[in-house]
Amino acid sequence: MRIDIISCVPRLLDSYFDHSILKRAKDAGLAEVVIHDLRDYSENKHRQVDDYAFGGGAGMVLGIEPIAKCIRYLQSFRNYDEIIYMTPDGDVFEQKTANRLSMTRNLIILCGHYKGIDERVREHFITKEISIGDYVLSGGELPAAVVSDAIIRLIPGVLNDETSALTDSFQDNLLAPPVYTRPADFEGLTVPEVLLSGHEKKINDWRLEQSIKRTQQRRPDLLK
Amino acid sequence: MRIDIISCVPRLLDSYFDHSILKRAKDAGLAEVVIHDLRDYSENKHRQVDDYAFGGGAGMVLGIEPIAKCIRYLQSFRNYDEIIYMTPDGDVFEQKTANRLSMTRNLIILCGHYKGIDERVREHFITKEISIGDYVLSGGELPAAVVSDAIIRLIPGVLNDETSALTDSFQDNLLAPPVYTRPADFEGLTVPEVLLSGHEKKINDWRLEQSIKRTQQRRPDLLK
Repeated sequence: MRIDIISCVPRLLDSYFDHSILKRAKDAGLAEVVIHDLRDYSENKHRQVDDYAFGGGAGMVLGIEPIAKCIRYLQSFRNYDEIIYMTPDGDVFEQKTANRLSMTRNLIILCGHYKGIDERVREHFITKEISIGDYVLSGGELPAAVVSDAIIRLIPGVLNDETSALTDSFQDNLLAPPVYTRPADFEGLTVPEVLLSGHEKKINDWRLEQSIKRTQQRRPDLLK
Repeated sequence: MRIDIISCVPRLLDSYFDHSILKRAKDAGLAEVVIHDLRDYSENKHRQVDDYAFGGGAGMVLGIEPIAKCIRYLQSFRNYDEIIYMTPDGDVFEQKTANRLSMTRNLIILCGHYKGIDERVREHFITKEISIGDYVLSGGELPAAVVSDAIIRLIPGVLNDETSALTDSFQDNLLAPPVYTRPADFEGLTVPEVLLSGHEKKINDWRLEQSIKRTQQRRPDLLK
């Protein structure tokens, strides 16, 4: 799979894509994330990509011209399953969306910045708008990294142990059970005995019971 | 304000904190984010901070010893308003949480990684558990950056124009209205005439109407 991220501050994401599991996915040839600097598509000699909003008001708006040019350039090489815009008023991202997108081949993710992007881009170029949650950030770069991480870690072979992602929270509408590791006793704080028992069935029963209990306490909405 | 982030893969976040508004906030003396490498607090000669889960199963678990040592070390210098753990089963982060946390002085954010952290850390050291949404990521580093960004941009003086954050989505339970910038005509796609009219009242009325309409269409739950 390939994800092309378009950003006017591409350096924000460098170290994340250079060090995380996304790097491992790339090295293994399983997924590639390519970050494009929107300023490379500006016709302006100052490489400007934003301008004041028509009608006035605080904040700058990313213009349609460089975005259209960049998207069309990318489309000249391959077909994209989705052209995604990260925005707080998009569809709220959840695990099911990640599962579905992990089965696509080519995605573009456009990051907004400042006050947003020209509405005409959203109407005529974007096929899917995604929000990672009900809060506002200074740009779409972190959300683009969040979506890329959530998707790519699901591709078989990216995580060390394939079963690891299957036991995550949300995959079965249950939160994950508590986990413990050594030491068994830390300043008098001990580990539940069942986990030290070696009885696989008892351990599995305890974990399921804890998952259900935790979900009932913290997120009863997931059980509906 | 000061945010201490504890991570076992601290380099993931380097470029984000070096280039974003978080850098600007730091340079202006308004907010500082300090990233701590959990491995520096390992007693193990291999700087190991994780181990297998008691009871078996896929995935590694961050142990209580280095985490306790790091948190206690930080607490020896200052009092913390909250010690936050980023986890998908935490309280779902929203704009109101960001508003509230932006008024605190000192925060610790602990990033999980792999399968999670020893439950005893959550029970005995953590004061607040936050999830940025209903999806699973490979670690808490991006979520910690998301929370830091959402909080710090609200501190007066961090954004260029203070009014900018006030007109964001969610601050008044309405999504933001569409925005447009030059050119007024892009390949025949034009801008709503009212925005070119210069009538401030008409423009404000149009924006409010669009905000309400967009919220009704996309997120009727916010209007309840």
